[in-house]
Amino acid sequence: MSEQSVAHATFVIEHVYAAPPARVFAAFADPAIKRRWFAEGEGWVVDAFEVDFRSGGSETSHFRQIGGPAMGNDTHFLDIVPDRRIVSAYTMIVDGTRISASLGTVDLLAEGSGTRLVYTEQAAFLDGQDQVASREAGWRELLEGLGAVVDG
Amino acid sequence: MSEQSVAHATFVIEHVYAAPPARVFAAFADPAIKRRWFAEGEGWVVDAFEVDFRSGGSETSHFRQIGGPAMGNDTHFLDIVPDRRIVSAYTMIVDGTRISASLGTVDLLAEGSGTRLVYTEQAAFLDGQDQVASREAGWRELLEGLGAVVDG
Repeated sequence: MSEQSVAHATFVIEHVYAAPPARVFAAFADPAIKRRWFAEGEGWVVDAFEVDFRSGGSETSHFRQIGGPAMGNDTHFLDIVPDRRIVSAYTMIVDGTRISASLGTVDLLAEGSGTRLVYTEQAAFLDGQDQVASREAGWRELLEGLGAVVDG
Repeated sequence: MSEQSVAHATFVIEHVYAAPPARVFAAFADPAIKRRWFAEGEGWVVDAFEVDFRSGGSETSHFRQIGGPAMGNDTHFLDIVPDRRIVSAYTMIVDGTRISASLGTVDLLAEGSGTRLVYTEQAAFLDGQDQVASREAGWRELLEGLGAVVDG
């Protein structure tokens, strides 16, 4: 019998921001703001970043660390409720190889005058590429960077 | 604090077919065959069934039980490996309301001269709509119906 070619995993990250849900939501909805915390960073080059933020829309980003392989993220927005939630599916491509497909849920909960963001990723890692620990670590870093943008 | 608006769940169904992987794969890849086990059925009306079966392509189906509400399935194919696997994201809409977004993995494993199909669904149920038990029961029924087509 052949082996399964896909490994599934789920992780959840919670992060509390001082900013209210509308401001956190805008950091996902506004391409200029999202680009800052999602694609840019010291030592990174953004080759493309195109966003059509609506249920049924898509987002494509191409980026790389200086000297590193080309990386790509193709996102489909599946369900968007303003100031409340964003459910999307995305694949990651590294050096021409698709390494994963994921369902990502951003749920925004009012907490005092701020926001509790609950990010749930249900991931399928392809052909032994990538693993849940590194994916989760990457998202923790992104969501901290989001804090610098909305609270900073 | 507000409540989360999304409930996440994962289920796995295995089904063994006498048909080899290439034949089972074709039942997903060929729109005429897929329509038979996926959309048609006694007491059901298919209002639309459009398929662009490729990584990055999409599938849209609209169907209803006679006298029942309009139902819709919008699928994005995220990763297809011929005769091996299909990873897709799909949303379900009932009577105009989006009830879920899911990542579905079909993994085809050769088993003797037949196929072990492992279907993994990682689902996000929206606003208390639908539940994992009914979703899993629906897929068990579909995968049995697939057997009637490929082994029948």
